[in-house]
Amino acid sequence: MKKLNIGVVGYGFMGRTHSNAFRQAPRFFDLPYEPVLKTICARNAERAQAFASKWGYESYETDWRRLVDSKDIDVIDIASPNDTHAEVAIAAAQAGKMVMCEKPLGRNPAESEAMVKAVEDAGVANMVWYNYRRVPAVTLAKQLIDEGRLGRIFHYRTVFLQDWTISADLPQGGEGLWRLDASVSGSGVTGDLLAHNIDTAMWLNGQIGEVTAMTETFIKTRKHSLTGEETPVHIDDASLFLARFDNGSLATFEATRYARGHKALYTFEINGEKASIKWDLHDLHRLEYFDHRDEGKLRGWKDIHITDSDHPYMKNWWVPGLQIGYEHTFTHQVADFLAGLGAGTNASPTFREALKTDYVTDAVLRSAKSRQWETPKTV
Amino acid sequence: MKKLNIGVVGYGFMGRTHSNAFRQAPRFFDLPYEPVLKTICARNAERAQAFASKWGYESYETDWRRLVDSKDIDVIDIASPNDTHAEVAIAAAQAGKMVMCEKPLGRNPAESEAMVKAVEDAGVANMVWYNYRRVPAVTLAKQLIDEGRLGRIFHYRTVFLQDWTISADLPQGGEGLWRLDASVSGSGVTGDLLAHNIDTAMWLNGQIGEVTAMTETFIKTRKHSLTGEETPVHIDDASLFLARFDNGSLATFEATRYARGHKALYTFEINGEKASIKWDLHDLHRLEYFDHRDEGKLRGWKDIHITDSDHPYMKNWWVPGLQIGYEHTFTHQVADFLAGLGAGTNASPTFREALKTDYVTDAVLRSAKSRQWETPKTV
Amino acid sequence: MKKLNIGVVGYGFMGRTHSNAFRQAPRFFDLPYEPVLKTICARNAERAQAFASKWGYESYETDWRRLVDSKDIDVIDIASPNDTHAEVAIAAAQAGKMVMCEKPLGRNPAESEAMVKAVEDAGVANMVWYNYRRVPAVTLAKQLIDEGRLGRIFHYRTVFLQDWTISADLPQGGEGLWRLDASVSGSGVTGDLLAHNIDTAMWLNGQIGEVTAMTETFIKTRKHSLTGEETPVHIDDASLFLARFDNGSLATFEATRYARGHKALYTFEINGEKASIKWDLHDLHRLEYFDHRDEGKLRGWKDIHITDSDHPYMKNWWVPGLQIGYEHTFTHQVADFLAGLGAGTNASPTFREALKTDYVTDAVLRSAKSRQWETPKTV
Amino acid sequence: MKKLNIGVVGYGFMGRTHSNAFRQAPRFFDLPYEPVLKTICARNAERAQAFASKWGYESYETDWRRLVDSKDIDVIDIASPNDTHAEVAIAAAQAGKMVMCEKPLGRNPAESEAMVKAVEDAGVANMVWYNYRRVPAVTLAKQLIDEGRLGRIFHYRTVFLQDWTISADLPQGGEGLWRLDASVSGSGVTGDLLAHNIDTAMWLNGQIGEVTAMTETFIKTRKHSLTGEETPVHIDDASLFLARFDNGSLATFEATRYARGHKALYTFEINGEKASIKWDLHDLHRLEYFDHRDEGKLRGWKDIHITDSDHPYMKNWWVPGLQIGYEHTFTHQVADFLAGLGAGTNASPTFREALKTDYVTDAVLRSAKSRQWETPKTV
Repeated sequence: MKKLNIGVVGYGFMGRTHSNAFRQAPRFFDLPYEPVLKTICARNAERAQAFASKWGYESYETDWRRLVDSKDIDVIDIASPNDTHAEVAIAAAQAGKMVMCEKPLGRNPAESEAMVKAVEDAGVANMVWYNYRRVPAVTLAKQLIDEGRLGRIFHYRTVFLQDWTISADLPQGGEGLWRLDASVSGSGVTGDLLAHNIDTAMWLNGQIGEVTAMTETFIKTRKHSLTGEETPVHIDDASLFLARFDNGSLATFEATRYARGHKALYTFEINGEKASIKWDLHDLHRLEYFDHRDEGKLRGWKDIHITDSDHPYMKNWWVPGLQIGYEHTFTHQVADFLAGLGAGTNASPTFREALKTDYVTDAVLRSAKSRQWETPKTV
Repeated sequence: MKKLNIGVVGYGFMGRTHSNAFRQAPRFFDLPYEPVLKTICARNAERAQAFASKWGYESYETDWRRLVDSKDIDVIDIASPNDTHAEVAIAAAQAGKMVMCEKPLGRNPAESEAMVKAVEDAGVANMVWYNYRRVPAVTLAKQLIDEGRLGRIFHYRTVFLQDWTISADLPQGGEGLWRLDASVSGSGVTGDLLAHNIDTAMWLNGQIGEVTAMTETFIKTRKHSLTGEETPVHIDDASLFLARFDNGSLATFEATRYARGHKALYTFEINGEKASIKWDLHDLHRLEYFDHRDEGKLRGWKDIHITDSDHPYMKNWWVPGLQIGYEHTFTHQVADFLAGLGAGTNASPTFREALKTDYVTDAVLRSAKSRQWETPKTV
Repeated sequence: MKKLNIGVVGYGFMGRTHSNAFRQAPRFFDLPYEPVLKTICARNAERAQAFASKWGYESYETDWRRLVDSKDIDVIDIASPNDTHAEVAIAAAQAGKMVMCEKPLGRNPAESEAMVKAVEDAGVANMVWYNYRRVPAVTLAKQLIDEGRLGRIFHYRTVFLQDWTISADLPQGGEGLWRLDASVSGSGVTGDLLAHNIDTAMWLNGQIGEVTAMTETFIKTRKHSLTGEETPVHIDDASLFLARFDNGSLATFEATRYARGHKALYTFEINGEKASIKWDLHDLHRLEYFDHRDEGKLRGWKDIHITDSDHPYMKNWWVPGLQIGYEHTFTHQVADFLAGLGAGTNASPTFREALKTDYVTDAVLRSAKSRQWETPKTV
Repeated sequence: MKKLNIGVVGYGFMGRTHSNAFRQAPRFFDLPYEPVLKTICARNAERAQAFASKWGYESYETDWRRLVDSKDIDVIDIASPNDTHAEVAIAAAQAGKMVMCEKPLGRNPAESEAMVKAVEDAGVANMVWYNYRRVPAVTLAKQLIDEGRLGRIFHYRTVFLQDWTISADLPQGGEGLWRLDASVSGSGVTGDLLAHNIDTAMWLNGQIGEVTAMTETFIKTRKHSLTGEETPVHIDDASLFLARFDNGSLATFEATRYARGHKALYTFEINGEKASIKWDLHDLHRLEYFDHRDEGKLRGWKDIHITDSDHPYMKNWWVPGLQIGYEHTFTHQVADFLAGLGAGTNASPTFREALKTDYVTDAVLRSAKSRQWETPKTV
């Protein structure tokens, strides 16, 4: 098995999920490449070293340019805050590295477009971590739709509900809190949460044609964790929009960090002429399926426990009835990326595919300001 | 439509459910008879009068013998405590009245046998209020089993869980509390709750061949509400048994009034070679169904909302999606009784069928004492 | 108990729910008035007679003006299609009758305003059948909100999902299908379904300040059941909108008859700073409640089985654990109307309160056309 | 961090879960030891080699005695079929190795007792893989009970339901099917599944005092996969028992591989005077909790999503809302074993604690034969 040397930028939450995925994928999947955790990069040397030791990285760096310049690195994986994505990705691509990048691509369409151009000009393999596509239940949903089982689609509804920023005492910015600082994150829940909803939605149901949106910032000022000063909050705390897909179906999208009682409740439901599908992240190992072709008196929503060997990815794990968890979605993405590499195909979503999502989040933010229906730019 | 004059004995909880059922059945079902609420009978004259006024009875009595002797009464319906069942039923049958009786039949097999003999000697229509058979979901379960959809049955498991007697301060005996007084009730949860489980189980899955049981009285003495004295409690607070049905399937049965968090959680689950069924009283308008013949990757428990016109009894109520409740099971039983009367057939369960259940509860109580497997007497 | 003579116009689905409610309310509630089913009115004499016989009406009529003119009628209850509401209600009020009316009030604000004026000019008791307020779980939600348990409200989301019109073969218009004929109904799901969502929402969460909406007619032409001709469909099959309440909370509303797998799935969820609430009509006897003040490691959504005597309306029904159903909401409304009559207060919602809902549905329909945010007129 | 050299015997399903746990534990927990995957042992050399390569073992062997004899091995971990447990464990202990062993300990009490004696005579660290204790929700249940939150316990009910052996075509014995061969496994579901139920139950609720049981073998003969001959099946396909705990609570236990629709549905429910708890393996990241001390009208079962940092083990994984899966229970057990080693304490359950479970399964099998109540031997 060929070795593939990985350099990871960022050691936060996503640094951990990615590191774990690189370690786990070859244990459970037969792959053409063995990823090697070569170098971790983060600004704080002490913590970078500890992280390297914990996860078995061969070395650590505090300047990402060292990874880009290194001949020992095949893949640059970007797991750092959003304001670093464009710069690192573009430099990595120009250095001929494959690039994997956390979502969203850039903080705005201009950054994202430059990133797409860079990887395509360089002709390097690239992928964005929209990990929820690789929840087995979500992949199964995709299969069912592609097999035509739902028929014509009428409705799509999806939410991403959290409640972790309700307290007015929570500061903005800094370690672990950069998602509340618009200059780093680009936007609030629109880029952080809705981007997931949109990526999945367009993967399952095609292009979104137009949107009308509203956003809100419930807490107007917060202390900044670095300066200690009370400053205006620029992110959107909540973002909601109505949409019409190109296939004629109607949709509601909503994301918020002010939905008391929900930690990470990402859900979607799709209603087709013949069948409907529901899924939620809080029980990610289940898929709800209603098939109108069932015998009348026995029609109902079927609760499918996605742990069988004929469910996507699941024959590689345990035995029926035994669920996997959140982290496995990243493992699947690594497995698919490496398999694609072996087959000479790009694992989805590529930077270009992810750009489509950024165009929709941009239209959402524009609509919230213009109070008009807006049309997302298309790729 | 012919009138059928009803005399009801007892104005407690069951007096209300029966009265309501007699009033409602002809509004929702096309029936050959119109029940007329002729006379209510209860010991307390003032309350009997108030009850008569509330429910539209033409008259009230304080001595049930007046109903038995009356030429104006066609049906005697017994909704009074268990210690009155045998005497009233036998007298009513001997007077040529049709007899409807709350469950269980008698306090013990001897009483029950005498009651069966009386109605059969008199040749009068008779029925016992095992109302849960007429939950539409339960009736549908019966249909599915009779159609052979489950195949060979391997397992039956059922519980009836309540928590209303956990407080040691609750007195025994007297108004509303006679269920805690063994001299009135015959037994505790075995006759009160398990009798329902057993009736449904044998209706769905055939004769129970043998049982091994355990019972417990958690609170050993209670104040008697009439005397004020602290006296030993003679009822069983909990009753559990294992059983083997004649068809070879194995079962667990459990009833208790000490299951904190459950008000009236009557549930059953049946596992067959080809399919399985689950139901519970706290959501009585739903039936869970698993069919192994479904396509492999789409197998799961189907949650059927039993509110469609092709579900048992439901075309007579509202429109799909709109649930009915507990009281409707009694209305269905009246409708079936009256329809049976018109057709010259007995509505199930008759006294004789109910006797089978009393034989099983008797075997359960015997086994709990003997600590041996016991075989229920058969009818 | 004083008699109150009721004349009901319309013998369809709502004619049955109202008739049942008038019969049942005094059986379960102590009320100052006993409603008497005096006269049923419907165009078809034969069926009116049959309905009268079934439900125990003393007489029937085929012209509603006879009810309005009758001295024997105290209350005119309108359960006929929407195009009759205004005319009947106004005439009834002018004749000094109390008026109860099915929702929505009129087919458009002009009709509704005229109806409000008529009952207020006449000074007669009046009420609109927004029955879902009287689901015990919904009433409990109202109590919890009014007690301040949720704190500041951030989000409201609600849907009403059905699937009964998906087939293109379903005709429009005529008996049982007038809801598909815009000339009779006024609108499609906006007035039929969303009106319920809006009434409840404003009752619970206050005035809706502005909306942006989209509607769709998925099946563009249908055979008309009366003429047999294929004609354009003018109703909205689906209606979605975003809203901002006056209290600053954000909302999504959606109603459709094209959500495969849902029969009458009316749901709402409210997220407050301290607590959240969820409810759905398919299990109307349950309320979901999350309280952030609970001990951290034991926080979770609580599934409350609304069958206890300390739950709204429930002490009048059975015992804990035994659920009621859909029809009971109408019974509660009659009980509250009669209690209000005795106390000299109007039961909510009055015509004037219902007008507020009509103003919002109007704004929704306007926004769907203008593709702009629209502000509902306020009462 | 000190290295701890692991030799694993067996590369089947459990060989994989253990190998993964040894690799993962130090990535997520701060531990005093780093486990080194030294040697894998299995009979088939080619497959042992492949397994070693997949999981990163330094070497492989085909004779477990080589591991016992090796100076490089600190811990012998037994993940091979039940008929090997006693021989390997005793030899390993006598060689001074720490011993970890899959459950159940031996095929019968005699084997188990010898194993306990061996590790205790040798004074070596020892542990049995009753992994379900380390489901965070189950550990939380233990904490709640130990804190006295449930009060006096009245009831315990637990099942382990599977459906993978219903087909009569499934052979017995051989690779992957040794669980159907009583000479290898010792018993059927009693040792395979009920042992888990019993271990958890006695951990949570104390010693089981007496049992009455029934077992059944539904398919009487099966082809043996090694000989091809149709031979009698000696294992129990289903095993049910009633029990009385020493604390006076009553219990039902049931395990079967003939419950159509259930893959690995291990559930338990505990009813105490003040509170109740429910858990099931199909949604292992949830715990249901009912607390009677809650305000009356808001009482209900709380659905706790066990993904918060104040839930057992969970601060070491991801962020709230993101679930873990089955394999993590083994990782937790390795973490606890290594932490215990560092602290000089034994991680539970030791061989001696596991022997208690074997005594109960023995009493269950004896009772099924004797048709009497039987008393488990105590440790």
